[in-house]
Amino acid sequence: MKGIQLIPVEGFPEVRPGDDLDGLVAEAVGDTLRSGDVLVVTHKVMSKAEGRLVDLATVEPSALAKEYAARWGKDPRQIEVVFRESRRVVRMDRGVVISETRHGFVCANAGVDASNVPGGDTVCLLPVDPDRSAAKLRAALLERLGVEAPVVVSDSFGRAWRFGITDVAIGVSGMDPLADYRGRNDPHGYPMEASVLAVADELAAAAELVMGKTDGVPLAIVRGYAYGRDGGTGQDLLMPPERDMFR
Amino acid sequence: MKGIQLIPVEGFPEVRPGDDLDGLVAEAVGDTLRSGDVLVVTHKVMSKAEGRLVDLATVEPSALAKEYAARWGKDPRQIEVVFRESRRVVRMDRGVVISETRHGFVCANAGVDASNVPGGDTVCLLPVDPDRSAAKLRAALLERLGVEAPVVVSDSFGRAWRFGITDVAIGVSGMDPLADYRGRNDPHGYPMEASVLAVADELAAAAELVMGKTDGVPLAIVRGYAYGRDGGTGQDLLMPPERDMFR
Repeated sequence: MKGIQLIPVEGFPEVRPGDDLDGLVAEAVGDTLRSGDVLVVTHKVMSKAEGRLVDLATVEPSALAKEYAARWGKDPRQIEVVFRESRRVVRMDRGVVISETRHGFVCANAGVDASNVPGGDTVCLLPVDPDRSAAKLRAALLERLGVEAPVVVSDSFGRAWRFGITDVAIGVSGMDPLADYRGRNDPHGYPMEASVLAVADELAAAAELVMGKTDGVPLAIVRGYAYGRDGGTGQDLLMPPERDMFR
Repeated sequence: MKGIQLIPVEGFPEVRPGDDLDGLVAEAVGDTLRSGDVLVVTHKVMSKAEGRLVDLATVEPSALAKEYAARWGKDPRQIEVVFRESRRVVRMDRGVVISETRHGFVCANAGVDASNVPGGDTVCLLPVDPDRSAAKLRAALLERLGVEAPVVVSDSFGRAWRFGITDVAIGVSGMDPLADYRGRNDPHGYPMEASVLAVADELAAAAELVMGKTDGVPLAIVRGYAYGRDGGTGQDLLMPPERDMFR
């Protein structure tokens, strides 16, 4: 049937620091992944394999972290980790820190997350370079399986003005993360306005629908999407500072 | 195969004010739509059927609209329509107006759009009540086809901090637009943090992947998604003002 299939990859094992993620993914998708599919991977398995875990017992909170945490009933060590992962605080109120990470993502708590991490005193950071993580996995899948499939690394972000989180792309390799219709005409022959679609974010959101939050499905395959082949990275999905009206 | 299918509904006719949209949709999806599918409809076909088109020749711009349009090379009549569709301006710079519509959506240009509208001097507004439009279509499909399928009305919104637009849900009927994991435990037994997923927005984004912008595909069917049956509307996707850090 014409259209797109979203295929969950089930039975993926718990990942630990130092695990061979390329090998685990290749084994999990080997029977299913085809060239032309897009593989969406939640960042958390990459972060874990890359050892991006922090034992809060080792964290000495700063004065600001202590004061803010005390005021809002948060863990001061976790707030400190959020500060360390940030290069700029955008908003800080009601116990939340919305900041710009070193990658340039603006999100709550700098992507630092305590859920889906074994050990109650451990938090998980974003990968150091999600685009590099995506490119590495893509290259490994080509080498091990002979399959050429773009890789999208996803995380769940909140949004200004809208309730609830959705998955977005924080790392991209092997496809154009944007579909740019500027300069093309609509079916009536009029030029399209302001039509650059963040398709990598839409792929991440679509994949989330078959992953769920509690099901332990960190991989999904998107089959049948005609992605752009110009390349690009997750950095292309960041609003350029000079166009950002919400700094 | 386990997973979700995204199915484009092709060959949908151009919609004109006063057209029987329920009948057109029922005819277009009659052979395909099944109970338990989600039907995603771009708002534009609803707006057109509901006559939500404005001939700019009839619009007298205000002083502010004239001045702002002149400064940024925009059509003052179109800016005026944006003002009329807004109840609050959030940001106004660089020729853009980001405002809160009467529905409560914060978006660029109050959802007023000139693309995909026949006639260069006509703009298209959002439906008066996208939730009501969704509910009406859902009821009609149940009556005409005997099919119980939630309806999601979509539009393309920009995002703070991220480049490119993605489709979101502006009207919902027949499903819970949110999946609330608060209070549940992750696979390690720890409570989930901040995990309310805006699944109706993810469904809209997923559907966009099979619609495209220039292909004239205003309908898509999502098959295999286990939506929540608690109900709710697109209004549930708005950030409550008291929690909004970006007013």
